Amino acid sequence: LIPIIWRDDSNTLSILDQSLLPFQKVFIDLKDAESTALAIKNMQVRGAPAIGITAAYGMILSLTSKRPSTLQDAIKELSRAKQILDSARPTAVNLIWATSRMLKLAETYVENGNAKNVNELIQLLKSEAKKIFDEEYEAELQMGLYGLEKINDNDTILTQCNAGGLATGTGLGTALAPVKLAHALGINVSVIAPETRPWLQGSRLTVYELLEEGIKVTLITDTAVGLVMYKGMVNSVMVGADRILSDGHVFNKIGTFKEAVIAHELGIPFYVLAPTSSFDLKSNVNDVKIEERDPNEVRTIRGIPITLENVNVYNPVFDVTPPKYITAIITEKGIIYPPFSENVKKIVNK
Amino acid sequence: LIPIIWRDDSNTLSILDQSLLPFQKVFIDLKDAESTALAIKNMQVRGAPAIGITAAYGMILSLTSKRPSTLQDAIKELSRAKQILDSARPTAVNLIWATSRMLKLAETYVENGNAKNVNELIQLLKSEAKKIFDEEYEAELQMGLYGLEKINDNDTILTQCNAGGLATGTGLGTALAPVKLAHALGINVSVIAPETRPWLQGSRLTVYELLEEGIKVTLITDTAVGLVMYKGMVNSVMVGADRILSDGHVFNKIGTFKEAVIAHELGIPFYVLAPTSSFDLKSNVNDVKIEERDPNEVRTIRGIPITLENVNVYNPVFDVTPPKYITAIITEKGIIYPPFSENVKKIVNK
Repeated sequence: LIPIIWRDDSNTLSILDQSLLPFQKVFIDLKDAESTALAIKNMQVRGAPAIGITAAYGMILSLTSKRPSTLQDAIKELSRAKQILDSARPTAVNLIWATSRMLKLAETYVENGNAKNVNELIQLLKSEAKKIFDEEYEAELQMGLYGLEKINDNDTILTQCNAGGLATGTGLGTALAPVKLAHALGINVSVIAPETRPWLQGSRLTVYELLEEGIKVTLITDTAVGLVMYKGMVNSVMVGADRILSDGHVFNKIGTFKEAVIAHELGIPFYVLAPTSSFDLKSNVNDVKIEERDPNEVRTIRGIPITLENVNVYNPVFDVTPPKYITAIITEKGIIYPPFSENVKKIVNK
Repeated sequence: LIPIIWRDDSNTLSILDQSLLPFQKVFIDLKDAESTALAIKNMQVRGAPAIGITAAYGMILSLTSKRPSTLQDAIKELSRAKQILDSARPTAVNLIWATSRMLKLAETYVENGNAKNVNELIQLLKSEAKKIFDEEYEAELQMGLYGLEKINDNDTILTQCNAGGLATGTGLGTALAPVKLAHALGINVSVIAPETRPWLQGSRLTVYELLEEGIKVTLITDTAVGLVMYKGMVNSVMVGADRILSDGHVFNKIGTFKEAVIAHELGIPFYVLAPTSSFDLKSNVNDVKIEERDPNEVRTIRGIPITLENVNVYNPVFDVTPPKYITAIITEKGIIYPPFSENVKKIVNK
């Protein structure tokens, strides 16, 4: 299940429309920067790394669709495409990171004479976009291999949200990478997926992704995470991360904190899996603002009202898990154990 | 907001249809035992105490609708009504308790000659049904007064599910009783209500009930219970209980356990409010089977699918909270503090 596929013969980016999952499995073909930006805006592609990869190819699509005749026009076109793409989801760090990397490289290739015409530039940029994809995949594979050390035969892993291959674009994922490698190696492993309100990434995406790959999964409500741990149904918890601080505070999808506290209380290992690019070594825990989203995400489910329309709602998207509840942080550069305030920097700066 | 109203002039039981809340506020009029049983079966009335009160009046409705001419026929009719009512929700303890109490009393009144004709019997049974309602209300009022000791001005209370007046039929409730008394006394108090998947009692019922009474309420997803406690937004947690064991283990709506563990970890008081009739002094924690319900409750929301129809689901209705996480249990006979294995019996048997 690879949700982002580049078709070189037709200069087309095919993305699996995540807004329709799991009810319809539709790939949409993107052929220019405008449609790519729209797909990002409409969350047809979501997840920070997946957005980054998509945007990198969106830069290429601006050239293959517009076919500028000179290198100068090509750079102009890329700058224009970058603006359109960046504004699709202004807060997505990976998006701007990817378009900047592509534009900067194009400028360097033109300046250095590496690209002698627009076709050569397109070929070089295609290599770079593939490199972004491959780097992401490689990091996930490494995380998966490190994480595999923490999985035994017949284990059941509790996760949260969707930290799988749909979110990263590679088909592998972060928190789900060890599970997928274990399954591929014939280790018997299963997953408990909480539905993860309000967006239902668990019931819509994680369930879909795992069933597609033939991995055993059980869906529960978010209210049942405590009981499954209490009843001994969970061997370890594996979640992703949106941001990790140098002292080990982890910002991740709302609901992660409760799993960490209960796991800690019951002696169940709690692992965070994230690439070193997700670390923020500068911020303090109180500096990070927790994003709140539209109250109607809580007042409705798939457009259907479930409460009174005038009720006051608090709808935070992330929560923060203090380091004391975290057994280890698994990155592509290795496993970080407590004390995190000493060990995070050692591994991340390796 | 009283969801069960007896109209003596027309021999009608008006119940607020909870299956339509909060979208429509419709009272349905019940005039015989059959329609009363159907309303219980269809969960138009729900919550153990509310079902008990409804069933008691359902017994009376069997007489007022059929109008048997002799006392002997009246007892026959009551026996028939009891069977119909009891089978509406066979696992509801309060239902059978209420119909048994009514039938037994009717038999005694006939045997002792207290009721000389059917009309007199009906009048005596009306007093008894009112007594059942009043006893419930009185117990909730006492719990509310004891609970009031734990509420300070400007407090915010986190709850779970709907342990309010809709569930008990009185309009007051168990866990929400102290909040309602505080509000009535001019104390500034507000509630955070988790939506409580899969049945959404929080977003559908608790929100409705509190807004109707002008009490401040904020709706959150079940994923956000950790963050609101972590951020210091909660002064105490107050929940109801379906069953409490002599050692203090509490069985309540799924999701209660996670609130208890996090509250304990963060030093937030966690109170359970339940009448002494909810105590089970005989069973051991391992004796109690946790009921699992239809997987489609998790696969759909208000009839709309939210995941793949073939996904494996675990859908427990209750969870169990060990005594170590409970600050106190508040009953109509007083507040029970740890050690529960000593103190539960002292208060319950008072």
